[in-house]
Amino acid sequence: MKKKGIAVYPGSFDPVTNGHIDVIKRAIRLFDRVIVAVIENPTKKTLFSVDERMEMLRAVTRGLSGVVVSHFDRLLVDYMKKKKASIIIRGLRAVSDFEYEFQMALTNRKLAPDIETVFLMPAEAYTYLSSSIVKEVVRLNGSVKGFVPRQIEARLIRKLLTK
Amino acid sequence: MKKKGIAVYPGSFDPVTNGHIDVIKRAIRLFDRVIVAVIENPTKKTLFSVDERMEMLRAVTRGLSGVVVSHFDRLLVDYMKKKKASIIIRGLRAVSDFEYEFQMALTNRKLAPDIETVFLMPAEAYTYLSSSIVKEVVRLNGSVKGFVPRQIEARLIRKLLTK
Amino acid sequence: MKKKGIAVYPGSFDPVTNGHIDVIKRAIRLFDRVIVAVIENPTKKTLFSVDERMEMLRAVTRGLSGVVVSHFDRLLVDYMKKKKASIIIRGLRAVSDFEYEFQMALTNRKLAPDIETVFLMPAEAYTYLSSSIVKEVVRLNGSVKGFVPRQIEARLIRKLLTK
Amino acid sequence: MKKKGIAVYPGSFDPVTNGHIDVIKRAIRLFDRVIVAVIENPTKKTLFSVDERMEMLRAVTRGLSGVVVSHFDRLLVDYMKKKKASIIIRGLRAVSDFEYEFQMALTNRKLAPDIETVFLMPAEAYTYLSSSIVKEVVRLNGSVKGFVPRQIEARLIRKLLTK
Amino acid sequence: MKKKGIAVYPGSFDPVTNGHIDVIKRAIRLFDRVIVAVIENPTKKTLFSVDERMEMLRAVTRGLSGVVVSHFDRLLVDYMKKKKASIIIRGLRAVSDFEYEFQMALTNRKLAPDIETVFLMPAEAYTYLSSSIVKEVVRLNGSVKGFVPRQIEARLIRKLLTK
Amino acid sequence: MKKKGIAVYPGSFDPVTNGHIDVIKRAIRLFDRVIVAVIENPTKKTLFSVDERMEMLRAVTRGLSGVVVSHFDRLLVDYMKKKKASIIIRGLRAVSDFEYEFQMALTNRKLAPDIETVFLMPAEAYTYLSSSIVKEVVRLNGSVKGFVPRQIEARLIRKLLTK
Repeated sequence: MKKKGIAVYPGSFDPVTNGHIDVIKRAIRLFDRVIVAVIENPTKKTLFSVDERMEMLRAVTRGLSGVVVSHFDRLLVDYMKKKKASIIIRGLRAVSDFEYEFQMALTNRKLAPDIETVFLMPAEAYTYLSSSIVKEVVRLNGSVKGFVPRQIEARLIRKLLTK
Repeated sequence: MKKKGIAVYPGSFDPVTNGHIDVIKRAIRLFDRVIVAVIENPTKKTLFSVDERMEMLRAVTRGLSGVVVSHFDRLLVDYMKKKKASIIIRGLRAVSDFEYEFQMALTNRKLAPDIETVFLMPAEAYTYLSSSIVKEVVRLNGSVKGFVPRQIEARLIRKLLTK
Repeated sequence: MKKKGIAVYPGSFDPVTNGHIDVIKRAIRLFDRVIVAVIENPTKKTLFSVDERMEMLRAVTRGLSGVVVSHFDRLLVDYMKKKKASIIIRGLRAVSDFEYEFQMALTNRKLAPDIETVFLMPAEAYTYLSSSIVKEVVRLNGSVKGFVPRQIEARLIRKLLTK
Repeated sequence: MKKKGIAVYPGSFDPVTNGHIDVIKRAIRLFDRVIVAVIENPTKKTLFSVDERMEMLRAVTRGLSGVVVSHFDRLLVDYMKKKKASIIIRGLRAVSDFEYEFQMALTNRKLAPDIETVFLMPAEAYTYLSSSIVKEVVRLNGSVKGFVPRQIEARLIRKLLTK
Repeated sequence: MKKKGIAVYPGSFDPVTNGHIDVIKRAIRLFDRVIVAVIENPTKKTLFSVDERMEMLRAVTRGLSGVVVSHFDRLLVDYMKKKKASIIIRGLRAVSDFEYEFQMALTNRKLAPDIETVFLMPAEAYTYLSSSIVKEVVRLNGSVKGFVPRQIEARLIRKLLTK
Repeated sequence: MKKKGIAVYPGSFDPVTNGHIDVIKRAIRLFDRVIVAVIENPTKKTLFSVDERMEMLRAVTRGLSGVVVSHFDRLLVDYMKKKKASIIIRGLRAVSDFEYEFQMALTNRKLAPDIETVFLMPAEAYTYLSSSIVKEVVRLNGSVKGFVPRQIEARLIRKLLTK
């Protein structure tokens, strides 16, 4: 029988937020396996290295059976074929996300018609949460409790404030 | 083992369009069973009766293994509990859909936190297609080829033009 | 000295929801007096009469000093002049509200340039909450706990389910 | 030589506003002939009859050479073929218009690929102006100066207030 | 008695435009004191220094009693606590602003629940006006009359064209 | 007789996509002459030089009578006056374009009231297509067949992959 259920949740995760974790938990209830895949894009500057981002993702998804953390540096659909995954998971938060997400989903569909993008809605408390805003708040000495797990906040503080 | 895969695709389907059929086909690739569920709302005027709408849906989904057609007249989440379904399928076409869909999904989540709404993107050719526009075009003697299957067009013509 | 602070919060309130109450509480922290003003529009069908809607508003705003409940059946800006109010309060929830609200605010500004519309953001839990969805859920026997105060739910049940 | 320039500007015009007049003036600078075409839809209730709406349009476009006023009760593209027109004019005002307009334009393109829809932007003062809001303001005894020409205001008052 | 009315209007103001001035004038009619607060963000490149931006703001708000100009380099809500201000003023112009503004307002609300963000609508002539577009037009030798006060245009020309 | 029909289609075209070509073909059916005008902006980094972009545009518009390719480095409206052009062509694809396009169109209208911006809708297959996404896909070794003409794909590969 053809296995249906390998899904990939791609993203920068710089760093992972409670909104991402919420999406991962929803995805794993729907699909057999969820690969959280860090995008490795040498042209885009990130605060954390790919290794650090994967390490943080592993720490916060520990105990979620079926979730694995990985990374990729090629076309998402090529990576998925290699992994025999056929489902892309995306969290849809706001209208401003919507069109960019559709553009990506349509492009991926053209490149690989068998791959389906599935949009999930994070809990409303995370609707307007983003990695950028989390970094900005920490940079200005604010508390990001409720936005990221405690251990991620600790890492953000170490990275941003103790130079 | 807990069964993951029963999904419900609720809608008016007055009548079913190629856009709906596209979503059904995508859904059945993702989940074990898809119940296409016609909303029976006595306060909303429709062109076709619930029986006619189910009949048309059955005709166009014949051959799609795992798809069943049904109807409901209560709260969607109550209907789903009865059917042991935990996934709501919705096609997301345009920004104007987006917020209404989010409102419904959040309401359903509050009423039944274990039920997850999953958004799929229909083929772009169907992005702006709706049952209303199909009825309007037929009413004015236009052709809806490419918008609905031939047999649905025939039924629309009979209903709208041969009184 | 010219008094600054009389604000009017106009709406149908058919019935008042927790989202409306949230906006009223925010408004009264900003302005000296907030008149919650029920729109009396004979051409629009409502579930509750103007008197019932005012009664419910009074019940749920009891204890909020500075808040008064009233109604009007003319142009909002004419009503405000009579009341010597110069601020319109509106809750802004979602993109779909945005343009309608702007249309109303611009029209009011043209009719009365001295009146200012002030937009407040309800708590995110109420972002997608509306009176219509509350009525729909009650009609289908669902619980609206968390959407409206308990006494409003009781009245909805009496009105919608015990005929 | 094939004539390029016949454009049709379809609408309800119930009644014509300064925003519509602005679009007509822009259109006639671009195309040789502009047919302002009143939609005759027996299922949609309007305040003014088709004859009244055409009469008002003729009054306010008097002196605009190249503009003619007409009406149609069939599929827009069928009407255009009869008139040898190949351009549809639409005013684009706001995001909420956008998707509906795209839906219509795509439907028309599918029904008649040779017909092109051209979107113009009205003056920003008219961005949020609509026939509905004009009728609402007059109904409540407000002034619509600046929203419609004086003669249209007079007709609105006669129709709405002197029964 | 607790003082209600200190509001902060934060922004880059690089440089101040007629749209900003319009918002400031609306704000001061609503609140006792309005602090126009220039954001000092070392990681973001601006055309004018913080001192220059404050100087321009002071020049154009001279005569507006109750308005003071200042700057801050920390979390907005921390700055506000120091100033005993409890109201954030934001101009809301377009849908594209909307979600970013909501994200900021929700973040601030989480960091400081007592601080309320109030959205005002600038005059429609300024709806689509931004500091970036003003700089771009001046850079290409265009006139920005009507977009910024004359003295700001003079400074832009000096800064951008006379190197 | 005053000549109506010179239109300018400005853009970065870095590189030209099938979406741009679709808009050019629609525009030339409406207006006598269409100048495809490459924006020369020294502050914005592009992949291809102005000469390369013009060369590619000429290659793909060869055979489209009435279309000329050019470039400009000043204010668009100043360039148009020199060319005696009075119509700006823009392709309108999605809500996210909409407001930026309106901002540009309003700014141009203020700078030169006689110049009109005309929005066309590309074929839906190109709705979410952009030069950026094309470059990104090629960079990651994906095929952009259907997104750009074959010769443009070849040039992208040479530029991006054979260093």
